[in-house]
Amino acid sequence: MAAPLSRRDIDFLLHDWLNITALTEREHFADHSRETFDGIMDVAADMAVKLFAPHNKKADQNQPYVGDDGKVVLIDDVKLALDEFAKAGLIACGFDESLGGIALPTVVNRAAMAWFQAANPSTSSYPFLTIGNANLLVTHGTPEQVDTWVRPMLEGRYYGTMCLSEPDAGSSLADITTKAEPAADGTYRISGTKMWISGGEHELTENIVHLVLAKAPGGGPGVKGISLFIVPKILDGERNGVSLVGLNHKMGNRGTTNTLLEFDGATGYLVGEEHRGLSYMFHMMNEARIGVGFLATAIGYAGYLASLEYAKVRTQGRSAASKDPSAAPVPIIEHPDVKRMLLAQKAYVEGALALGLYCAKLVDDENTAEPDAAARAHTLLEVLTPIAKAWPSQWCLEANNLAIQVHGGYGYTTEFDVEQYYRDNRLNPIHEGTNGIQGLDLLGRKVVQGGGAGLAVLAETIDATISRARDAGGEAADYATSLADALQRLTETTATLWKGLDPAVALANSAVYLEAAGHVVVSWIWLEQLLAVGSNAGDFYDGKRAAARYFFRFELPKTGPQFELLTSLDRTTLDTDPAWL
Amino acid sequence: MAAPLSRRDIDFLLHDWLNITALTEREHFADHSRETFDGIMDVAADMAVKLFAPHNKKADQNQPYVGDDGKVVLIDDVKLALDEFAKAGLIACGFDESLGGIALPTVVNRAAMAWFQAANPSTSSYPFLTIGNANLLVTHGTPEQVDTWVRPMLEGRYYGTMCLSEPDAGSSLADITTKAEPAADGTYRISGTKMWISGGEHELTENIVHLVLAKAPGGGPGVKGISLFIVPKILDGERNGVSLVGLNHKMGNRGTTNTLLEFDGATGYLVGEEHRGLSYMFHMMNEARIGVGFLATAIGYAGYLASLEYAKVRTQGRSAASKDPSAAPVPIIEHPDVKRMLLAQKAYVEGALALGLYCAKLVDDENTAEPDAAARAHTLLEVLTPIAKAWPSQWCLEANNLAIQVHGGYGYTTEFDVEQYYRDNRLNPIHEGTNGIQGLDLLGRKVVQGGGAGLAVLAETIDATISRARDAGGEAADYATSLADALQRLTETTATLWKGLDPAVALANSAVYLEAAGHVVVSWIWLEQLLAVGSNAGDFYDGKRAAARYFFRFELPKTGPQFELLTSLDRTTLDTDPAWL
Repeated sequence: MAAPLSRRDIDFLLHDWLNITALTEREHFADHSRETFDGIMDVAADMAVKLFAPHNKKADQNQPYVGDDGKVVLIDDVKLALDEFAKAGLIACGFDESLGGIALPTVVNRAAMAWFQAANPSTSSYPFLTIGNANLLVTHGTPEQVDTWVRPMLEGRYYGTMCLSEPDAGSSLADITTKAEPAADGTYRISGTKMWISGGEHELTENIVHLVLAKAPGGGPGVKGISLFIVPKILDGERNGVSLVGLNHKMGNRGTTNTLLEFDGATGYLVGEEHRGLSYMFHMMNEARIGVGFLATAIGYAGYLASLEYAKVRTQGRSAASKDPSAAPVPIIEHPDVKRMLLAQKAYVEGALALGLYCAKLVDDENTAEPDAAARAHTLLEVLTPIAKAWPSQWCLEANNLAIQVHGGYGYTTEFDVEQYYRDNRLNPIHEGTNGIQGLDLLGRKVVQGGGAGLAVLAETIDATISRARDAGGEAADYATSLADALQRLTETTATLWKGLDPAVALANSAVYLEAAGHVVVSWIWLEQLLAVGSNAGDFYDGKRAAARYFFRFELPKTGPQFELLTSLDRTTLDTDPAWL
Repeated sequence: MAAPLSRRDIDFLLHDWLNITALTEREHFADHSRETFDGIMDVAADMAVKLFAPHNKKADQNQPYVGDDGKVVLIDDVKLALDEFAKAGLIACGFDESLGGIALPTVVNRAAMAWFQAANPSTSSYPFLTIGNANLLVTHGTPEQVDTWVRPMLEGRYYGTMCLSEPDAGSSLADITTKAEPAADGTYRISGTKMWISGGEHELTENIVHLVLAKAPGGGPGVKGISLFIVPKILDGERNGVSLVGLNHKMGNRGTTNTLLEFDGATGYLVGEEHRGLSYMFHMMNEARIGVGFLATAIGYAGYLASLEYAKVRTQGRSAASKDPSAAPVPIIEHPDVKRMLLAQKAYVEGALALGLYCAKLVDDENTAEPDAAARAHTLLEVLTPIAKAWPSQWCLEANNLAIQVHGGYGYTTEFDVEQYYRDNRLNPIHEGTNGIQGLDLLGRKVVQGGGAGLAVLAETIDATISRARDAGGEAADYATSLADALQRLTETTATLWKGLDPAVALANSAVYLEAAGHVVVSWIWLEQLLAVGSNAGDFYDGKRAAARYFFRFELPKTGPQFELLTSLDRTTLDTDPAWL
C-alpha cells in the first residue's frame, strides 16, 4: 500500500515553513520537542497505512446495515483499527495531561490525523466526531460532565456525535423543532427527530454521547431559543429514549453510519446555560469546518499520489515529437496534458494542506500565544475558516476528478481507488455548512464584522509575504506583483459590494466572492511555500516551484473575471424569476 | 416520474431555431413533415418515461453479473424495454426504407434518442451501440454483409459492439496487438484481448455482432496496419471463438455490461479493404463522439430538471431581506445562490443540447444538402466534433455536481436520483477519446488541416450570427460585442500557437485551448438561441434570456485568462520534469 500522504511534504510545511518547534518555547507545549512531534507522525503514518487503509474499499463495498436484532453491523476491521487508535492515545493526544492527553499542538495533531483521513475517511470519522464533541464539553461543560462523558470518550470507550440537523432544518438551524422539557430533577426530556447524524448508532463502543440542539421553553423564536444537551444512548445501563429510525445510504463515505434518530422523551443534561446552545455549537462548528477542509484535502492528496504512481507505470502513446510508430510507448507521465493534470492536483492538494496547517497553527496561537498575537490569530482564523472549509472541498474534489482522468477507463472502475475518493470527497462541499453557506458567512459576516477587521488583518498578513517575496526577487517577486494586484482587487471588491445599502445585492454572488477570495488566499499560501523553498536544490523543491508556477499562471488569473463580475454588482441571479427556470 | 427532458425546449430548438421542417423540401426527407417529427418525439418521450426511466435506479443497484452457467444476467426490465424499443422501429428509424427504416433526419433522431439517454443511459446504450455499428456497415460493408448482419440488428434481433481498445491500448490504437490471420476461405482467424467492450456479452438478443480492429499481415507498424472485421458471437448456431473474460465494475453506468473479451481464433469477416480499418472506424467514431455529447447532455438535463423540481418544493431559510425568524421558510429556489446553481445548469444543459442538435443538423446537411453546402457542413462538423464531445461531458457533469448541491445532504443519498446522474456522467469525459485526446484533435488537427479551413468556416458562421445580433440590438448586440472579441482572440491565439515551429509547444496546453474554444462556441450557440427568442413574451422565453445572460456574464469571461495563458506560450506543463511530481 502506497502512502496516501507525503511525509516529506508534511515535514516541509511543519518545520521548514511553519517552524512549529518554536511552539515548544511556550509553557503549554514545553514538554514537547521536534522528537515528540516526529514520533507522533511516525505512529500516525504507520497505523494509518497498516490498519486503516487496508479496509477502506472493503468498508465502501460493505456498508453498515441494521441486523435482525436491530443492531447496526459494521465490518470487523473498523473496530479493530479504532481500538488500536484509542489504545495509542490518539483520541486524547490533543487534550491536557489532566485528561489523559499530552497537550499536542493542534497543528501537529491535525497533521497526524490527516494520515487517517487520507487512509480511510469513513473509519476515522468516528474518533474525529468524538474529539469535536469532547472539545466542546471541555470548554462549555461542568467538571462533572467532563468526568462522566469526556474521559470515557478520550479512552475510546464512548464515542460522540453532533445532533444538529433535522429533516426540515439543515442549513437553517433556526427551524429545528426538537423540544427540551425541563424535569423536576434538573434534567430535560428531549423529543424530536435528528437527521444526518454520523456515528448515530453502532456497537463500536459501550455508549454514544449525543450532543443535541433542542428548544427549551422561553427562548423565543429562531436561533436564540436553542439550547444544547448531552443525551447518552445508554443511561444507568438502560437504553435512553433515543432510537434509530433508519440509516442513510450515500454515494460515498459509505463506511460511516449516517442515521436518522428519534428522541422520544430521552433524558438530556443541559450544557452551559439555556438558550446559548448555538454559540457553543459554533465554537465546535468552526473546528469541524477546518476538519472538513482537512478531510477534503486528505482524500485529494491520496488521489494525487495514486494517479502519480499510475502515471509513472502506465505506458501509452508517444511524445508529440516522435513520429515513429514502432517506438516503444512512453509512461503517460511524459505527456504534457497528464503533467498538467498532475500539477493541478499537486497545486490543489499541497496548497490546501498548507492552508489547513496554517489555520491549525492559528488555533494554537489563539490558545497559547501572547494576548495581542492571540487576538490577531483569532481574527485571522475567523476570516479564513469559511475558505479553509470550502476551498479544499471544491478543489480537492476537482483533484479527485483529475485523478480519475489520469487513470482513463481504469479510473472509472472499482478495481482502482480513485473512483471511491471522488465519491467520498463529494460529501465535503455539503456537510458542516454547504459551500453556499460558507460564501454567505465570508462575505456577509467575516469580512464585515468588527469594521472589517478580519479582512484588514488578512491583507496585512498577505502584504508582509508580498514584501518578503519582492525582496527575494526572481519568480517570487513576479508572483508578488500578481498577488498584490489580486489582493487589491479583493479589498476593493469587498468595499464596492458593501458601499451600497442593499445586502441582497451585496450577497447575490457570494459564491463567486468565496471562490475568488479562496484563490487569492491559496496564491498567498503558495508564495509562502515558495519563500520557504528558497534556493534549496532537488526534485522536492523543484516540484514546489513547479506547483507554485502552475498556481500563479493557471489558477490565480481565474479571479480576474470573478472580480469583474462582482464589482459590476451583477443582478442576474437576483433578478431571475423562479418561474423562468 | 417527471420528464427528464423538456419537450418545450426541444421543439423550440428544432423548429423555432433550426427550422428543421425545411429539411422535408429535400428529396431524401420528402415523406416527412412536422407531424411525423412530432409523432416520433411523442413516442420517444412516452416510451422513455414509461419503460426506461422506471428501472434506471434498479439497474444501477443490480448491476450485471455472470451466473453459474457463465451467462450474463441483467434485470428483466432491460430486455422488456428494449424489445418494445425495437418493435416501435426506433433502432431502424434513421435508416433508409430499403432497410426497414423511415429515413428520419439525424437531427430528429438524435432528439428522440436523447429522451432515452436522459431516462436511462445504461439500457439505451445497447441499441445506440448497435445503431453505430450498423451505420458503419451500411457505409463500408458489402450488400451481403448488410443483409446478414445489419438487417437483424435493425430489427433488434442482434446487437452490435465496437471492439477497439485493449488492456494496453486505449487512447493509442496504434499499439493494438489483436491479430487477424487470413484463412483459405477468405475469412480471418481473429486472436487477441479487447477491453472496455460495452454490450460485449449478454442474452438480450440472438446474436452479437462485434466490429473488431485487428492487425492483418503486411500492414506495417502503427495505425496503418489496422483492419476491421465482423466477428459474430454465434456462427451457424455455434459459439464463435470469442469468450467473456470478465465484467468491469464501474462507478456509474452500471446497467451496461462492460466486458473484457478474449478472441481465440474466432472467425472474422473483413470489412472493406485490409489496412484501412481505422479510417472506417473513425467515421463511426465521429458519430459516437457526438453521441457521447448527447449522452452527457441528457444526463445533465435530467439532473437540472430534478434539482429544479426539488428547489421549488423544498423550503429552508428566509430571504436575505427578512430579519423575522418567525416568518415561514421559503422554497429554496428563492435564494440567489440556488438560482445561480439552477441558472448555471440551465445554461450548460440547454447550451449543450442546442450544440448537439446543431451538429446533428450538420450531419443531415453533409448527407443531403447541395454539394457546396454539404462540403461546408462537413468542414464545420469536423471542427465542432471534439467540442461537441468534450464540452457537454465537462459542463453537464458540472451541472450534475450542482444538482447534488441544490439537494444538499439529500442529493448525496441514493434516495434521490442526482447522485447516480453524477456517477453515470463521469464516464463521458473518458470514453470515445478522453477529453485530453479531444484537445489534441481540435488544436493539433481540426483547426490546422486544410490550411485552417475548419476554423475559417466556424469564424464565418459565428460572424454571421454576430451581424444579425448587432442588427437586433439590445442585449443581443451587447453579447455580439463580447462574442466578437472572444472569437478574435480564438483566431489570434490559434495563429500564435502555430506560428512557431515546435508542435510540442503549440500543443502543451491543448486542454486549455479546448475549454476556451468550447466556451466561445457555446456563447455563439446561446446568442443564436437569443435571436430565435426574439421579442417573444412569456416565462419560457424569459428563461432563455436569463440563461443567455448568465452565460455571457458568468461563463464567457472565463476565456480571458485562458487566452492569455495560451498566447504566452506557457511552458509550465512542458518543462515540468516528471521527477518533480
